[in-house]
Amino acid sequence: MSHGKEGLRRRAYLLLEHPGTGPRLARVLDVALILLIIANVIAVALETVPRIYATHHASFRAFDTISVAIFSVEYMLRVWASAEREPRLPPWRARLRYMRSPMALIDLGAVLPFFIGLLFTSNLQMLRILRLFRIYKLTRYSPALSVLISVIREEAGALVAAFSILTILLVFAATGAYLVEHEAQPSEFGSIPAAMWWALVTLTTVGYGDVTPITPLGKVFGGFITVLGVGMAALPAGIIASGLADHLHRRRDQLRNEFRLALEDGKIDLEEGRQIERLRRELGISRDIAHAILSEVRLRQVPRGECCCPACGHVFDSRKLASVRSAEPSKPGLQRIHDKPEGR
Amino acid sequence: MSHGKEGLRRRAYLLLEHPGTGPRLARVLDVALILLIIANVIAVALETVPRIYATHHASFRAFDTISVAIFSVEYMLRVWASAEREPRLPPWRARLRYMRSPMALIDLGAVLPFFIGLLFTSNLQMLRILRLFRIYKLTRYSPALSVLISVIREEAGALVAAFSILTILLVFAATGAYLVEHEAQPSEFGSIPAAMWWALVTLTTVGYGDVTPITPLGKVFGGFITVLGVGMAALPAGIIASGLADHLHRRRDQLRNEFRLALEDGKIDLEEGRQIERLRRELGISRDIAHAILSEVRLRQVPRGECCCPACGHVFDSRKLASVRSAEPSKPGLQRIHDKPEGR
Amino acid sequence: MSHGKEGLRRRAYLLLEHPGTGPRLARVLDVALILLIIANVIAVALETVPRIYATHHASFRAFDTISVAIFSVEYMLRVWASAEREPRLPPWRARLRYMRSPMALIDLGAVLPFFIGLLFTSNLQMLRILRLFRIYKLTRYSPALSVLISVIREEAGALVAAFSILTILLVFAATGAYLVEHEAQPSEFGSIPAAMWWALVTLTTVGYGDVTPITPLGKVFGGFITVLGVGMAALPAGIIASGLADHLHRRRDQLRNEFRLALEDGKIDLEEGRQIERLRRELGISRDIAHAILSEVRLRQVPRGECCCPACGHVFDSRKLASVRSAEPSKPGLQRIHDKPEGR
Amino acid sequence: MSHGKEGLRRRAYLLLEHPGTGPRLARVLDVALILLIIANVIAVALETVPRIYATHHASFRAFDTISVAIFSVEYMLRVWASAEREPRLPPWRARLRYMRSPMALIDLGAVLPFFIGLLFTSNLQMLRILRLFRIYKLTRYSPALSVLISVIREEAGALVAAFSILTILLVFAATGAYLVEHEAQPSEFGSIPAAMWWALVTLTTVGYGDVTPITPLGKVFGGFITVLGVGMAALPAGIIASGLADHLHRRRDQLRNEFRLALEDGKIDLEEGRQIERLRRELGISRDIAHAILSEVRLRQVPRGECCCPACGHVFDSRKLASVRSAEPSKPGLQRIHDKPEGR
Repeated sequence: MSHGKEGLRRRAYLLLEHPGTGPRLARVLDVALILLIIANVIAVALETVPRIYATHHASFRAFDTISVAIFSVEYMLRVWASAEREPRLPPWRARLRYMRSPMALIDLGAVLPFFIGLLFTSNLQMLRILRLFRIYKLTRYSPALSVLISVIREEAGALVAAFSILTILLVFAATGAYLVEHEAQPSEFGSIPAAMWWALVTLTTVGYGDVTPITPLGKVFGGFITVLGVGMAALPAGIIASGLADHLHRRRDQLRNEFRLALEDGKIDLEEGRQIERLRRELGISRDIAHAILSEVRLRQVPRGECCCPACGHVFDSRKLASVRSAEPSKPGLQRIHDKPEGR
Repeated sequence: MSHGKEGLRRRAYLLLEHPGTGPRLARVLDVALILLIIANVIAVALETVPRIYATHHASFRAFDTISVAIFSVEYMLRVWASAEREPRLPPWRARLRYMRSPMALIDLGAVLPFFIGLLFTSNLQMLRILRLFRIYKLTRYSPALSVLISVIREEAGALVAAFSILTILLVFAATGAYLVEHEAQPSEFGSIPAAMWWALVTLTTVGYGDVTPITPLGKVFGGFITVLGVGMAALPAGIIASGLADHLHRRRDQLRNEFRLALEDGKIDLEEGRQIERLRRELGISRDIAHAILSEVRLRQVPRGECCCPACGHVFDSRKLASVRSAEPSKPGLQRIHDKPEGR
Repeated sequence: MSHGKEGLRRRAYLLLEHPGTGPRLARVLDVALILLIIANVIAVALETVPRIYATHHASFRAFDTISVAIFSVEYMLRVWASAEREPRLPPWRARLRYMRSPMALIDLGAVLPFFIGLLFTSNLQMLRILRLFRIYKLTRYSPALSVLISVIREEAGALVAAFSILTILLVFAATGAYLVEHEAQPSEFGSIPAAMWWALVTLTTVGYGDVTPITPLGKVFGGFITVLGVGMAALPAGIIASGLADHLHRRRDQLRNEFRLALEDGKIDLEEGRQIERLRRELGISRDIAHAILSEVRLRQVPRGECCCPACGHVFDSRKLASVRSAEPSKPGLQRIHDKPEGR
Repeated sequence: MSHGKEGLRRRAYLLLEHPGTGPRLARVLDVALILLIIANVIAVALETVPRIYATHHASFRAFDTISVAIFSVEYMLRVWASAEREPRLPPWRARLRYMRSPMALIDLGAVLPFFIGLLFTSNLQMLRILRLFRIYKLTRYSPALSVLISVIREEAGALVAAFSILTILLVFAATGAYLVEHEAQPSEFGSIPAAMWWALVTLTTVGYGDVTPITPLGKVFGGFITVLGVGMAALPAGIIASGLADHLHRRRDQLRNEFRLALEDGKIDLEEGRQIERLRRELGISRDIAHAILSEVRLRQVPRGECCCPACGHVFDSRKLASVRSAEPSKPGLQRIHDKPEGR
């Protein structure tokens, strides 16, 4: 493998994956690919409208062929360049490992239906629909999505509990409604599975109104179950929302701590700045928010010349620590800010 | 009672209840029983579909008989083995106590309707439906459910307040709608109890649409009450969700504290590990999350060699503590655990 | 005023208002009055059902007369006994002050319509409905309700912001829907006030379905506004729920602090117990929860013999403080628990 | 420019913008302008009702002309007075800068359609509707709205994640419903864009009921997607609510810290009071809440004479600090503020 080839591979890797800071072209490429994915999703949706498909049949086909070509090249380039991921492994092993990653499988899944469609001409419509799942290629570009997924994993216990209660409530609601209503409305509440549709529509507060209790007893039972259920159906959203809030604040706290540590000597030097920047990117915090956190830390820490616990607002006196200093030749950490203007 | 019989009882107890770590067979048994319960619930639901019941009458009966046999054996084994729960009591007292526990009553309730049905042949359909409540046997296998129930108990005050306001709002909405609409729609809003159905369906945001205000004044009142109500109906879910988040975080904090204490000497020794494992199982925290907490604690505590307040992120200087140590012959606190293996 | 009369007034006061611990009869009286209020609300609701009213006309009238008699006596007793509230004021001033309190006005409002009805025989039906507001007498018995009201006051700023955005969104949605749909559906979307009904029903996610967009553009606009709105309508509930959680936890923290302070010497003495009981009642925390908090505090504080910050889990070493003690003749507070078994 | 003119400009500026404390007239003017804006919005809405417009045509026209006159004068005065904003810039530059601010553009947008309507007489109705956006002039008067907007900006990452998942879920739901239902209901589920309407109405729990699945498979898929979706649609509200709660509490904490610092010497002196008042107004906290915070801080801090950590409620012993003082000639920290008036 020539050196030039390896340099090319390195540049392709930075262009496509840009860990940390890739070239500016990488961002342009990202936006172009995102737009292409969205255009693909819209195209597949519009194709199902018979009137549009009839007149623009050829354009849709051309657009799909071009898209698949681009996605295929993208996939092959990514696989080829993935050898840069783990330089210590032989290239083919690094590539095999990458090909088994979820992102690579989604990329493969985005083009495979097209090539299968070339081999087997049957069930074309199903293959056309499968192209819609190209939307999952977008997950690569959304760091927030990975946050949400990790929150769902963290709160899995609570979510399972919420869905368990919802399921038990559904069975209870469907059984009750079946018993109360199945004589008055044999077509809608004729069996428990049928009544389950009403229970689902009611407990999730969707309330289409295609099936509603009509007997007085049914209405009383329906009202009772609705009041109970309305609390349960919104539970998963509440759990995820509070978990998410918690998760994002933990990430910001991590960055805030880093800022505090760096600012203890009054300024962020080059090495500290680089370290913080690395952390910021890892945590997926935007530059704006990082800046806001920095100025908040500055506001709290620097002008007072004292250490104050933001959790409780208590100001630790710097002189108490100074007394410790006088007993010790080495200067203790909390005095550094004080000493800077005079001593250093 | 022979020794062999007691050994058998002990093994049955570990198999069925497996407190802490039972044999691997116990997990297989759990899954089998869970699947059987779910199959029972589905069977009872499908039996209410006349078409299915007509053709598969005999299969349903056979499946029910087999299920009841299994559940009965399970119940009797559990009662017999429950003597192991409190070894200091005479077996019959331990068993009586177990038989009065909610879990045992649910197990009994799952099989009793069948035997009652054998004695009294009337009202068969009602007894068939009662079998559906076998779903509550599942609660044994869901630790998260017990968490949810304890959260609901903790937040009972807030939940009662939310439901009180909802009730007052319901009465207010139904009365207002009755006054405004009962002349235009005498069949839907002819009385306050009738208008209550509209109020319930509206305030819980289900909104079937079977009853809606049609007069302009009714629509203004309906709109006003809806905007107010939409905040109230979702309140219980919000209360439970934030209580749940709080509860789960408190449990994790408890484990985190245990890790911190154990890690103060830099490593978790055998005794500490066993203690933490016991706590983890008690709190119902998964191995994955416990691992994540451990690495977080490690990241924060060990490499720095300093004590840091996670509430405010401030690192207390280790030299301050060093100065205390040099002035005192007795070893200062953060060194104690370190010294334990050697010194004591 | 004889001494016997004042003793009677004192007992009536304790019976009706029982600040802190009244006689057991007081609780029976409370439950009886609560049941009477609920029975009144149900009676008024049932009276509006023409069929029931026709047959039970006399019973309703009798029940109402008896209820008003009881409520009137209750009101007069409360006013008479209210002189005990502020013993330093002359009785008539204390009573006037009580009569102007919201609770007394609600009590008066519960009986006044009846006496007005005796004077003016017109508009009987309206007066019958007014009796329904006797439900507000229940607020006296719900401490949680006063919590909820204080939370709503605390979060007023956020709630006003949420309703402001909702209003602006409503105007925007109604205007957009009017522009897009008023040609296709002149009867439903013929004017902005008419379209406002659709906007309200949609943004609160009630969705009756009596008015829906039918043009493609209307559906696109409706979908867009729904996705936006669904986040806004649930906002007030979320704000109140998180405010409530916060408020209740603050109250428990207050009690927890009191327990911690009292337990610093290892036991709660008589005076401390009385003080905590007073606080518990003031904060409206149930005995069960107070007990749970106490055992949690005990678990955390006593066995370790060290002081640990539950917020950060850091264990303050008792020996560091011991070194301070050796320099000081008076024993410092944190050592008290340690010393108990040996020294005292 | 004469001195009198500048004095007038200064007074106009204080009247209209009143940074901090303007004259009392400023508040009257604010209320009058708010009422005029609301009256305008109501007028525009009523104009779209054909029956009302037909009879009150002239009144609407007159009211609009008067309103535009007032708003125009207001706009011109604001622009003229805006020279006071940045006294160091030449007036025309300060005015140009103000004219480009969002608030000024909204003010301009409120009157411009009227003047355009005078020039071009076509499409009158559209211009009438545009007047409705005068409602945005209200944003100037709602400090809570700016809080909400800054919360939305803070939580942008989480909100984007929630909407991304919602979008992917929508595409998934619409595709699934199209595949399952398009043969049974070709008019409602005939294409993916058509099925998208059902998906939107269902996932946001609006549930009009104009389009519902009718095949058994469609109902199973619909039920599954609804249970999943109900958690996602309420997510943005949950995120904003918890972010808002967090934001408001952070603001109050800031004020609380300021009170604590000021109260360390037992009283708030004049300079401290002025500083706190400035902060209170900046943070948009009402006088009532500020007062509540102050009394809470007083309750916790002053009477005890000791330092207590509100995070854990532990009271640090004052004697420990006393021992440090006796060993050191320099006064320890907690005494410093006390000493200030006398010693320095």
